[in-house]
Amino acid sequence: MQAGLHIAIVGNGNVGHHLQKALEGIATVHPVGRDLIIPEACDLIMVCVPDDSVARVCEQLPENKLVVHTAGAVPMQDNNRSGVFYPLYSFSKDAEVNWSQIPILLEANSTEDLGLLKELATQLTEKVFEVSSAGRNQLHVSAVLVNNFTNHLYTLAFDHATQHNVPVETLFAIMRQGPEKAIQLGPINAQTGPAIRGDRSTIEAHLSKIQDEELRSLYQLLSDSIHNTHNR
Amino acid sequence: MQAGLHIAIVGNGNVGHHLQKALEGIATVHPVGRDLIIPEACDLIMVCVPDDSVARVCEQLPENKLVVHTAGAVPMQDNNRSGVFYPLYSFSKDAEVNWSQIPILLEANSTEDLGLLKELATQLTEKVFEVSSAGRNQLHVSAVLVNNFTNHLYTLAFDHATQHNVPVETLFAIMRQGPEKAIQLGPINAQTGPAIRGDRSTIEAHLSKIQDEELRSLYQLLSDSIHNTHNR
Repeated sequence: MQAGLHIAIVGNGNVGHHLQKALEGIATVHPVGRDLIIPEACDLIMVCVPDDSVARVCEQLPENKLVVHTAGAVPMQDNNRSGVFYPLYSFSKDAEVNWSQIPILLEANSTEDLGLLKELATQLTEKVFEVSSAGRNQLHVSAVLVNNFTNHLYTLAFDHATQHNVPVETLFAIMRQGPEKAIQLGPINAQTGPAIRGDRSTIEAHLSKIQDEELRSLYQLLSDSIHNTHNR
Repeated sequence: MQAGLHIAIVGNGNVGHHLQKALEGIATVHPVGRDLIIPEACDLIMVCVPDDSVARVCEQLPENKLVVHTAGAVPMQDNNRSGVFYPLYSFSKDAEVNWSQIPILLEANSTEDLGLLKELATQLTEKVFEVSSAGRNQLHVSAVLVNNFTNHLYTLAFDHATQHNVPVETLFAIMRQGPEKAIQLGPINAQTGPAIRGDRSTIEAHLSKIQDEELRSLYQLLSDSIHNTHNR
């Protein structure tokens, strides 16, 4: 069925760029410019524009076509036929993408349209999930925790190592192990370290080594949180 | 030179097990039992026992041989010829190990012995570093940040997603991206998210979605820390 599908793609940012490349093998892709002129043949319009432009762009598109956007933090729009096609990944134009590893989160306001999106997404990846706008909204909190906050811990750890003349390269292997172990065992089972062991003397020794007050508070709060999570 | 090297390995835990397997191709390896009887031919004794047994075991070993231990958190011992051979990685017996990706941190109390350890370590990995006991001690703080604390953030993120009926599998791809991006760009350049953008409305929206008080404090403190780190 997808063989004859014509897809219009609006936006040529990181997501638009990679979606266009990936879909070209699967369907006939029509890149759409700022004039928003959509070829009549198109069955599906994918709106890959910045979050705060999604609503404005979607309003200007034909009501009789399926219009999906790719922005995780934006709710499904209230067009006649609307949906969401959200690849949860951090794309950059110059990095190759292995779509088979990328989850695609779908939403649509009709079963038919959801089916069409599912069929399309499945050709890119087996990791296809139906998630509501409310679900995506909550998931954004989790994404901040696993991505933005872990990255900040790397920053703090690198700073600490560098202050003490230890090369940060010594940390790369355990950084890479982190997500793999958590995914394999589940993070609750993969937890190690002084806090889960209840090793107060190591915790105290570490706190005494940390000069920065904010980092000391973070160390304490995260250790407490580990202890409390595992002793409920 | 290493061709003729005889190495005694004390301890058959996770580290001892994998070191023995790896060194068998490079040197003649003698596993040593609880009797601590060391074959006279051995030039080097590697002590791979739990942290709190290192001192007791090392005291019982011959003074004229090079004795190294593999415990990151334990200082170099004060034997005549002592050292540290610390692979900074989380080993488990049933998981294959790619030594070329594992950093080995070395210390020795003579240049000759350091040279010998370097020559040996280099046959396992190019990632060989000389780090003092004081440096390793500080590095342990960094390791807790990049490993134990990031894993706990995964736990909290999975809990939040599950509470809202979103499958945790949707997070796997960005979890795996995290360390790769941080290593490639440096974490200070890889930072994204509402806190570094100064996007207070998203931060407030997320705080209002978090039921758990402890997680709310953590979210706030980590967001503040990102803001402060990037606005110094």
